[in-house]
Amino acid sequence: MNDVSKALEQLEQYQRTLSAYQHAIGVLYLDATTAAPSDTWEGRGRTMEVLSQKVYELTSDPGLEGMLSCLEANRDELSPQVKRQVEVIRKDYDRMHRFPQEEYVAYTVLINDAQNVWQKAKNQNDFPSFAPYLEKIVSYNKKFAGYYQPQMAPYDALLNEYEEGLNMQTLDAFFDQLRKAIVPLLEKLSKARPMDDGFLYRHYPVERQRVFSDYLMEVMGIDRRHCGIAETEHPYTTNFRNQDVRITTHYYEDNLVSSMFSVIHEGGHALYELGAADCYNDTVLSGGVSMGIHESQSRFYENIIGRSRAFVHAIFPKTKELFPEQLADVDEEMFYRAINKAQPSLIRTEADELTYALHVMVRYEIEKQLMADELAVKDIPQRWNQLYQAYLGVEVPNDREGCLQDSHWSGGSIGYFPSYALGSAYGPQILSVMEGQLGDIWQDVAKGDLSKVTGWLREKIHRHASFMKPGELFTQVCGPFDAKYYTDYLTKKYTELYHL
Amino acid sequence: MNDVSKALEQLEQYQRTLSAYQHAIGVLYLDATTAAPSDTWEGRGRTMEVLSQKVYELTSDPGLEGMLSCLEANRDELSPQVKRQVEVIRKDYDRMHRFPQEEYVAYTVLINDAQNVWQKAKNQNDFPSFAPYLEKIVSYNKKFAGYYQPQMAPYDALLNEYEEGLNMQTLDAFFDQLRKAIVPLLEKLSKARPMDDGFLYRHYPVERQRVFSDYLMEVMGIDRRHCGIAETEHPYTTNFRNQDVRITTHYYEDNLVSSMFSVIHEGGHALYELGAADCYNDTVLSGGVSMGIHESQSRFYENIIGRSRAFVHAIFPKTKELFPEQLADVDEEMFYRAINKAQPSLIRTEADELTYALHVMVRYEIEKQLMADELAVKDIPQRWNQLYQAYLGVEVPNDREGCLQDSHWSGGSIGYFPSYALGSAYGPQILSVMEGQLGDIWQDVAKGDLSKVTGWLREKIHRHASFMKPGELFTQVCGPFDAKYYTDYLTKKYTELYHL
Repeated sequence: MNDVSKALEQLEQYQRTLSAYQHAIGVLYLDATTAAPSDTWEGRGRTMEVLSQKVYELTSDPGLEGMLSCLEANRDELSPQVKRQVEVIRKDYDRMHRFPQEEYVAYTVLINDAQNVWQKAKNQNDFPSFAPYLEKIVSYNKKFAGYYQPQMAPYDALLNEYEEGLNMQTLDAFFDQLRKAIVPLLEKLSKARPMDDGFLYRHYPVERQRVFSDYLMEVMGIDRRHCGIAETEHPYTTNFRNQDVRITTHYYEDNLVSSMFSVIHEGGHALYELGAADCYNDTVLSGGVSMGIHESQSRFYENIIGRSRAFVHAIFPKTKELFPEQLADVDEEMFYRAINKAQPSLIRTEADELTYALHVMVRYEIEKQLMADELAVKDIPQRWNQLYQAYLGVEVPNDREGCLQDSHWSGGSIGYFPSYALGSAYGPQILSVMEGQLGDIWQDVAKGDLSKVTGWLREKIHRHASFMKPGELFTQVCGPFDAKYYTDYLTKKYTELYHL
Repeated sequence: MNDVSKALEQLEQYQRTLSAYQHAIGVLYLDATTAAPSDTWEGRGRTMEVLSQKVYELTSDPGLEGMLSCLEANRDELSPQVKRQVEVIRKDYDRMHRFPQEEYVAYTVLINDAQNVWQKAKNQNDFPSFAPYLEKIVSYNKKFAGYYQPQMAPYDALLNEYEEGLNMQTLDAFFDQLRKAIVPLLEKLSKARPMDDGFLYRHYPVERQRVFSDYLMEVMGIDRRHCGIAETEHPYTTNFRNQDVRITTHYYEDNLVSSMFSVIHEGGHALYELGAADCYNDTVLSGGVSMGIHESQSRFYENIIGRSRAFVHAIFPKTKELFPEQLADVDEEMFYRAINKAQPSLIRTEADELTYALHVMVRYEIEKQLMADELAVKDIPQRWNQLYQAYLGVEVPNDREGCLQDSHWSGGSIGYFPSYALGSAYGPQILSVMEGQLGDIWQDVAKGDLSKVTGWLREKIHRHASFMKPGELFTQVCGPFDAKYYTDYLTKKYTELYHL
């Protein structure tokens, strides 16, 4: 066996082992957030500590240097997949070497604790109990930013983690463009006749909502042999390979749409993961490539499909069958209008399409300031409330519905939020290319048949997993990104809806 | 730092690391059996392979030899706990060295596959599809028996795994004694007036049964901050430490008692685990000491408490409140009699107290023959059906309700079943000692207050985790084991119930 063969074998073994640890850690997290009793984090923290230490040892193992150098020296012999694997592992390896092991492990433990503390702090509306944890998380992230990309401003380095190439300069311009389109629309809208959506907040028994979720997943064409659904505080999707994906949701008895659109949103993430080609399993190229591309898929299904007249036409009969009393006086058009009601509000995950980006901008501003040392953690609530007043014109009554609402910071994700806005903005441009190639997709959607839509997305995006960089992938499908598709889409949709 | 201090540090580190891997493997198993979509075992198998290989490396690491020898040479300096840890690790270490690594890992993978195949075989009543897996499992277990205890007959070696000191000679005599007491009772009973329990098989909506489970766990005094409940095909309990225990159950819409008594049974296991002293966490002494002691606790709660008049008195009002229509024409005494109906039947887990041991004997006979090469796997169905005819007088209509009913063999557990009978037999002797020390416990039980009962069991049994050997522990609490307590208990209970 020559050196390259040996290195290739080592490469496979390495990726397989790493995937196994990631799977185990992923299942521990899934259990923690969906099934575990409340006071069990201590043991889980110890286990996470051991496993993450092992991941650290694996990914920073000096033995990888020889393997990587050998494969890099013989690039021409490698398949495109392996070439890209080597690239990704090299990037991670070089980075891991900048992390002191004790920091890496301590951070993993901190995150395990912080998530638990955040959950309780949120329940009890007690930001000060969470603040010391967030302070540590921010301070670690500042340090980590220097390890990731020492030449960049700290926040740029973090943004680059979630979306390679993204930076504050781009985002400032992007958000500026959005603001210029959304704010005038919202102004006009505030004078328009308010939409009635009271019936969405009648009593919807959880047990029925569970049946509704199963139905929605079926319409979306999600293969339940490979995709489960669980219940959690803050819905998310996780995947262990393309054959094992889990979505989560949260049911509220007095709210039909919260879970409905979280299921469609997470279902979009799930379709992306389920659509990855088998060859990426057990490699560093498995899974969606970036948060922006991921959100482009989830929000495509949630909003562009899920909040369309065609989709409502398809699902309304079954919806009414499941909730005959609650929707007795509601017709399809009323339902369509209600789920598209735009109104400044408090909770990002339940925001309408139009105001959604404004919620993201609040978090962007705060993260930018935190990372630039222009804001102290203890002052987040005040700043949060100011920004909600300024951008959305709403008063935040408490931190539970304010700066404690999202799980991201407690999970260590700083720089993630902008991906939501970016992903939302990718959607309409993807739609435009899709329609150019497939012609009218809405007739099928109106029949509850998403197979053409999903088939196209699978072919163009899903099957590639992390093989291409996010920018490359997007450009290959859509050409250069242009936020105008998004602002045009919003303008058209809301002008029609509200007769502006 | 001297050698002993170093060895003690290594000991702690070793146990902590091992506990973490066991936790991860346990959560993967919990996920697989309660939440995972059906076709996801392939990825889990790969992960299990990596993790179990790591466990093999850890437990067979030649580096342990120095640590163990050092601590063994300095036994007198060690605390009783550490002494026992060293003993247990030495036993495992010596044994692991007899296992070839590839066998150990291949077996773990086999078990992961076999469980999935068994599940499908059971659903489809297709024993032949499961047979090749069971053949491999039996053949591995024969080999393993030689690694465990080369001087013993293979089946004795396996029995000894689940209950140190147990062997076929003891069991033959024990089962003989049971048969002599149970068979005449059953004969008399067959001529007695049959009991009406039809109302237990009315329509009981799953959603309500879930609420009932929560209520039962509350009456049992199970701390839900540390104990969860999930749904699975074949109920079991698992624990990650004394602060994180999970029970599972299975609901049938046309059967109230199946889930009811599985919850009380698994709740008994859970109380044992939850009651272990904190000092055993993250050590090899964590968790219940043997299957026999474990079953003595679960079946104590299930039968001695759960099927008592006093317990029924306590829970009947709430039961009726939850199922007012189903139990409209039922009173407390009818309910008590119905849940104690004795009748030869097909399914072990749903058997009554009286015939339960006969179900175990069928499995015991088959395992004994399999391990002695007196029975081929392919002939199990036929032998199973013969034995059910001979011991219980019932005809087995299909393998689904016959030899495919239990998950044990697919999980690699051969030699486990006798613990169920042994555990059942421990119960009445434990009760007798408890009543001797506490006086009348039934007044409290009738009020739904199990705190004295559980407190006594915690003090005498639960808190010790695996510190003592099972025989030692039982004898310390009860004196020498005598199956007469059990046969007397059964005779008295069923004579009174059926006016024999």
